[in-house]
Amino acid sequence: MSEAKGLTYKDAGVDMEAGDRLVDRIKPLAARTKTPLVLGGVGGFAGLCALPPDIEEPVLVSGTDGVGTKLKLAFLTGRHDTVGIDLVAMCVNDVITVGARPLFFLDYFATGRLDVAIGEAVVSGIAEGCRQAGCALLGGETAELPGFYADGEYDLAGFSVGVVGKKSVLDGSAVQEGDVLLGLASSGLHSNGYSLARRALLDHAGLSLDSIPDGLGETLADALLRPTRIYADATRVALSVGGVHALSHITGGGLPGNLPRVLPKHLGAEIDGRWPEPAVFDLVRRAGRVEEAEMRRTFNLGVGLVVVAAADRAAAIQAALEQSGERVFRIGHVVPSNVDPEDYEARVTYTSQEA
Amino acid sequence: MSEAKGLTYKDAGVDMEAGDRLVDRIKPLAARTKTPLVLGGVGGFAGLCALPPDIEEPVLVSGTDGVGTKLKLAFLTGRHDTVGIDLVAMCVNDVITVGARPLFFLDYFATGRLDVAIGEAVVSGIAEGCRQAGCALLGGETAELPGFYADGEYDLAGFSVGVVGKKSVLDGSAVQEGDVLLGLASSGLHSNGYSLARRALLDHAGLSLDSIPDGLGETLADALLRPTRIYADATRVALSVGGVHALSHITGGGLPGNLPRVLPKHLGAEIDGRWPEPAVFDLVRRAGRVEEAEMRRTFNLGVGLVVVAAADRAAAIQAALEQSGERVFRIGHVVPSNVDPEDYEARVTYTSQEA
Repeated sequence: MSEAKGLTYKDAGVDMEAGDRLVDRIKPLAARTKTPLVLGGVGGFAGLCALPPDIEEPVLVSGTDGVGTKLKLAFLTGRHDTVGIDLVAMCVNDVITVGARPLFFLDYFATGRLDVAIGEAVVSGIAEGCRQAGCALLGGETAELPGFYADGEYDLAGFSVGVVGKKSVLDGSAVQEGDVLLGLASSGLHSNGYSLARRALLDHAGLSLDSIPDGLGETLADALLRPTRIYADATRVALSVGGVHALSHITGGGLPGNLPRVLPKHLGAEIDGRWPEPAVFDLVRRAGRVEEAEMRRTFNLGVGLVVVAAADRAAAIQAALEQSGERVFRIGHVVPSNVDPEDYEARVTYTSQEA
Repeated sequence: MSEAKGLTYKDAGVDMEAGDRLVDRIKPLAARTKTPLVLGGVGGFAGLCALPPDIEEPVLVSGTDGVGTKLKLAFLTGRHDTVGIDLVAMCVNDVITVGARPLFFLDYFATGRLDVAIGEAVVSGIAEGCRQAGCALLGGETAELPGFYADGEYDLAGFSVGVVGKKSVLDGSAVQEGDVLLGLASSGLHSNGYSLARRALLDHAGLSLDSIPDGLGETLADALLRPTRIYADATRVALSVGGVHALSHITGGGLPGNLPRVLPKHLGAEIDGRWPEPAVFDLVRRAGRVEEAEMRRTFNLGVGLVVVAAADRAAAIQAALEQSGERVFRIGHVVPSNVDPEDYEARVTYTSQEA
């Protein structure tokens, strides 16, 4: 027999009861995201989800992402209830680019020492993101990893699965010269470029998160923590009009890094429109004296999703999107390109945006 | 125009070129796991996978997990090429418990400063795990998060999707009194209980990782890093025989924490068999003077998956599994239980294992 004062798992830094308490708080949050397709929920070994009956030759579409160093803003402000929306957005906005309908989402939440209140706040954001995306929070993992993270910090990863009929997959092959680029407004930085933004705003300019910088009209914390927009509904609206040739989610890399990913190799993009840039970007630009090319390859600069639309359908798509509440900008069009197709930056030219 | 010496994303600690180099090294690894169902691969916004044509009323099954503090062993030894197998195993072994066939896998790899060689080693393990599980590595995310992880450290999350016909879902409802519990041999700790194991072996007993402790027959590092077994093939074999009523993946919580998850509420498990326990467990037990109940609720103790088999099919299932190379132990059987169904530990009784 072993001795009474032997080592326990809890001694080793893992509090399974805290994990159980968090699971109890997550259950109702996940339950509210349940769709009619869900067969099993959080708690078993795995989550089960049927397929919508109306999709011919269903193809599964899957993406994974994290929130990146935007999480640091949650740590600095103690506001943990919105980064979950960012997490869902980053995954779902990828999945919808091939024309897929989001089905379900799973999250991975890792921390050094589990704080149930923080965990619950994070998952409440994830559940809200799932609600906005119309997908079910089908499962998740809470990992308590002593020594991996600083006190009060954590990391998040998300996984999303959607479905699209094989004949409806947007693979970019339909894109042609003259297609119109419709930009859907972003809400701000979304979830990219935070290492640079923090360096510029907090370190270089020495701004405090609860200050209200000139022109921003809100605290820096509010601007920086604003959740990433989820374009699932917008995509559904655009697809229902017809004439959508491709969709590009503008993440790290900006327009130059993301638009060419959905264009045939012999085509590029000419950005000749103007659109309102959320004020936070110019704050970063000035605080860090960031060059324009670096701004463009790091941030979305106000456009979170680009709809590549057939020229004769662009107006109808734009109208339908605006009707549904989106702010839509004609930012440019598709042009021939004869540069190295792998040189994404060279395939995207700006003609009227130079300051 | 902004100034020439402005802040860049790279200044802020994010080296996108290193990320691109890693993607280039990952591509061939992922390509080798490609199955005929895969339509798109790493590189686009999302991964695409068709469904097997032979499954009626397909239900998607999904699970996410991490490797936990087993990663610390990789950090301590500099051996990064096996934790990816653990990652796939932890996810896939969950997905197969409902009778599903693994389809694809995605990984999330987060580190403070990207080391391309470490990243490549990790992903090579993930690809090997996918090969063993018969699923495609469909995508992944590499996150460089300055300040989140200690130098040379990282975290991993995995996500797996499988498919099963609706009428073939193992939901535990078929389990009945008298069913036989067949335990499939684990390879060691798998991916659970490492915080306790490290505390006991390294801190309490002061063992070094390159020592060869009495009775272990290998270095402590080899024993602790041995990859988690993947039971996808074994499950396929068992299901093909018929009479499989449930499958339980023995992870954190051990037999008491995991067996009841797949049993109807009025049933429990009596563990009356004996089986060879990998030597590493007794080393932990003695080094940490860990009580037997704590050992049982923390470690798999030699059984990584339990097949709950109809009594009249158990011998045939066992024979087929052994034929396929599995080591199989009759560890007990299903019995009536009248305790609180939520009290998992009380629903699993041990009758011949007391030392």
